[in-house]
Amino acid sequence: MYSKKIEEFLKKRKISVGDRIEVDGGKGKFEGLLMPRIQGEADILVIKLDNGYNIGIKMQGAEVKLLEKAKPKKTEAREGKEKGDIAILGCGGTIASKIEYKTGAVYPAITPEELRMTFPDIERLASIRSKSLFSLFSEDMNAGHWKIVAGAVADELKDGAKGAVIMHGTDTMGYTASALSFMLQDLPAPVVLVGAQRSSDRPSSENEMNMLNAVYSAKKDIGEVCVCMHASMNDDFCHLHRGTRVRKMHTSRRDAFRSINSMPIAAVNYMNDRFEVLSPCRKRSPAGSLKLNTKMNDNVAMVYAHPNIKPEFLKSLSDYDGIVLVGTGLGHVSANPFGDKNVHSVLPAVRELIDSGIPVVMSSQTISGRLCMRVYTTGRLLMEAGVIGDGADWIPETAYTKLCWVLGQTKDMKRVRELMLTNIAGEINERSALMEGY
Amino acid sequence: MYSKKIEEFLKKRKISVGDRIEVDGGKGKFEGLLMPRIQGEADILVIKLDNGYNIGIKMQGAEVKLLEKAKPKKTEAREGKEKGDIAILGCGGTIASKIEYKTGAVYPAITPEELRMTFPDIERLASIRSKSLFSLFSEDMNAGHWKIVAGAVADELKDGAKGAVIMHGTDTMGYTASALSFMLQDLPAPVVLVGAQRSSDRPSSENEMNMLNAVYSAKKDIGEVCVCMHASMNDDFCHLHRGTRVRKMHTSRRDAFRSINSMPIAAVNYMNDRFEVLSPCRKRSPAGSLKLNTKMNDNVAMVYAHPNIKPEFLKSLSDYDGIVLVGTGLGHVSANPFGDKNVHSVLPAVRELIDSGIPVVMSSQTISGRLCMRVYTTGRLLMEAGVIGDGADWIPETAYTKLCWVLGQTKDMKRVRELMLTNIAGEINERSALMEGY
Repeated sequence: MYSKKIEEFLKKRKISVGDRIEVDGGKGKFEGLLMPRIQGEADILVIKLDNGYNIGIKMQGAEVKLLEKAKPKKTEAREGKEKGDIAILGCGGTIASKIEYKTGAVYPAITPEELRMTFPDIERLASIRSKSLFSLFSEDMNAGHWKIVAGAVADELKDGAKGAVIMHGTDTMGYTASALSFMLQDLPAPVVLVGAQRSSDRPSSENEMNMLNAVYSAKKDIGEVCVCMHASMNDDFCHLHRGTRVRKMHTSRRDAFRSINSMPIAAVNYMNDRFEVLSPCRKRSPAGSLKLNTKMNDNVAMVYAHPNIKPEFLKSLSDYDGIVLVGTGLGHVSANPFGDKNVHSVLPAVRELIDSGIPVVMSSQTISGRLCMRVYTTGRLLMEAGVIGDGADWIPETAYTKLCWVLGQTKDMKRVRELMLTNIAGEINERSALMEGY
Repeated sequence: MYSKKIEEFLKKRKISVGDRIEVDGGKGKFEGLLMPRIQGEADILVIKLDNGYNIGIKMQGAEVKLLEKAKPKKTEAREGKEKGDIAILGCGGTIASKIEYKTGAVYPAITPEELRMTFPDIERLASIRSKSLFSLFSEDMNAGHWKIVAGAVADELKDGAKGAVIMHGTDTMGYTASALSFMLQDLPAPVVLVGAQRSSDRPSSENEMNMLNAVYSAKKDIGEVCVCMHASMNDDFCHLHRGTRVRKMHTSRRDAFRSINSMPIAAVNYMNDRFEVLSPCRKRSPAGSLKLNTKMNDNVAMVYAHPNIKPEFLKSLSDYDGIVLVGTGLGHVSANPFGDKNVHSVLPAVRELIDSGIPVVMSSQTISGRLCMRVYTTGRLLMEAGVIGDGADWIPETAYTKLCWVLGQTKDMKRVRELMLTNIAGEINERSALMEGY
């Protein structure tokens, strides 16, 4: 998205994004591929040099020469014919978008050939197969997409893949990872989600490190859905997180992903064959034992409790099949136990919802820690009303995907409560991990 | 709330909570005050020993003797006549509830005399004055309570107090602290909120450490609203957090409170006169310069973005005067830039709200990190629609209280945007703090 002026200038010279050009902005000539403008000033041309770095050159007064047109966009199916051990499934995100600047096309690297081109080291780690399921920003994904991913993983595992890697945007990666953890049980192989916090056109991108560690982890003896992302600000290693425990905790840092109320499964670095187990995980189930259950009810709302929240707001949710409250502290919303006339309790509205057959599940906006609704009167009143969650140490996002999945299995309130409070995929720890930090 | 059996047993002996008793459970005699049962087994009597520790003794087969009835409940006004330097204002919470077990009454320690009884060291730190504003669980508080607190602080400072300490429940302490930061500007003295994560009847309660450090901090040269809470799992020291930066990040740990996207103002320990500045803060403004502005609009909703969120959900918020989105990543909600037919974009609904004059403010559910809506198409589309927040590094709760306050000042959309994006009380850092962790 360059300015109109620049676009016309380029059009006149028959130059498009992806073409090899030479630009002389007065401070020497630069040769490279014309990149699309992602951000910044409108009159700056962005060139990817052959060393991989991007450079911005002021358009004003620069001389621009076309050296070579980009190769035509590939038209073959976005699926390779190879049947390697590790299935790489693409959902979008920045992780593998490197190649789009080489061809000028907007699709990410996805055929085995393209992936090997983008991540040359992949070859010495594993034989691969690959498929693009869709290409979306992860904030656009919903339960329908979770089903597609779960089904595709099951297909690949049935078809002989010994591990799966899912390339995914980072924004809602935690939601997808936990949803898949419920949809794919008794896994005979690890399912590893991977993404990149930094656009792959930035020198600070961690996409290669994450991707290769994901493939490396997908070969291990793990029978769980995991997320593999940078663990530190350096390029030292990645953490392999349990799918039901992982959360994006920073908008931009490369070490944004953290396990909550649990240690990560492992610290991983393919470069020196490091796979340091940090907390026990499920091993691969026998081949053929995979239980694929994609039934999901997406008519579930997530409600953030806050001062001034109105009873009417809760009441307006009567058309949902389930509600996750992101409460305060140990699992609270305003319940006005002292009957103060200046308090606007939402307890009656919560009770109404539950009495009408809509399960209401608690989680905490503190993110870390375990719910305990027995300590204070507020919690006890909410429990009496039927709110589900006392004692659980799930994160809000996992409580959400779990309720969607549970409501896909049953609408019976008693059964919903039982299933919610039964640990299925590590989302409820019996005991809290002993951790210095949290 | 002991079992019926125990209650009858106690009644027969005319023993009530707060009385001094002697219990012989077979392993020696213990003398102390009978405490109310907060949690745990129903047949355990809880006794507060004179050394301050609580002990649980099995009722079954124990011998119990009444030594002394609790002193009758005080009836005088819940406000002392003393005019000490530090004003201690009570809002409720567990911080000062120790005394209720000594008198058998359910109100917290609040007169200067009671406070000195509960926290004997307070005397050598400062002369105090005190007042109970109300006594609520903090999850029941709303904008009306914030106004009462702000007004009371202003009154005390005008009346000669040289610092203020606010005893407050922990659940929504962050919301109140940030709300007060906007309502009380150019402060001639520090306003320090303090609470306790553990009930004061538990040996692990940190209420004394927090309280004394709060009083100690209230004497310092600070002109901001702060929160003083335990910094570590040990009884080492407290952190003094900026009111607009602090967040409860764990349901139960004593070190639950953290500064987000910023270092705390100081590490504090009154015991060895430690006041280690960690990040610069505003100094006391000259006496008389305080600006009290309690105008608040509480008709503001907070919406947590999640997969499956419905456009209709956003549309149903048209009666609010403002909305804070708790978006994903750098500040996103589903906007479907690729026009995928299986994506349920909320962008049109967001645009409708804004076009009808309702400001929509962005924040991120990652909690840490800065919003940047210029990197990806989703963010750019939301900005084009008029969503406010690009570049801000506020936490969701502070974005919320700020929008309430800004909408109390003006309804003009342009002015709302200007005020929201102007740093008022440290809620927007120009530069990100360099921090090893986050």
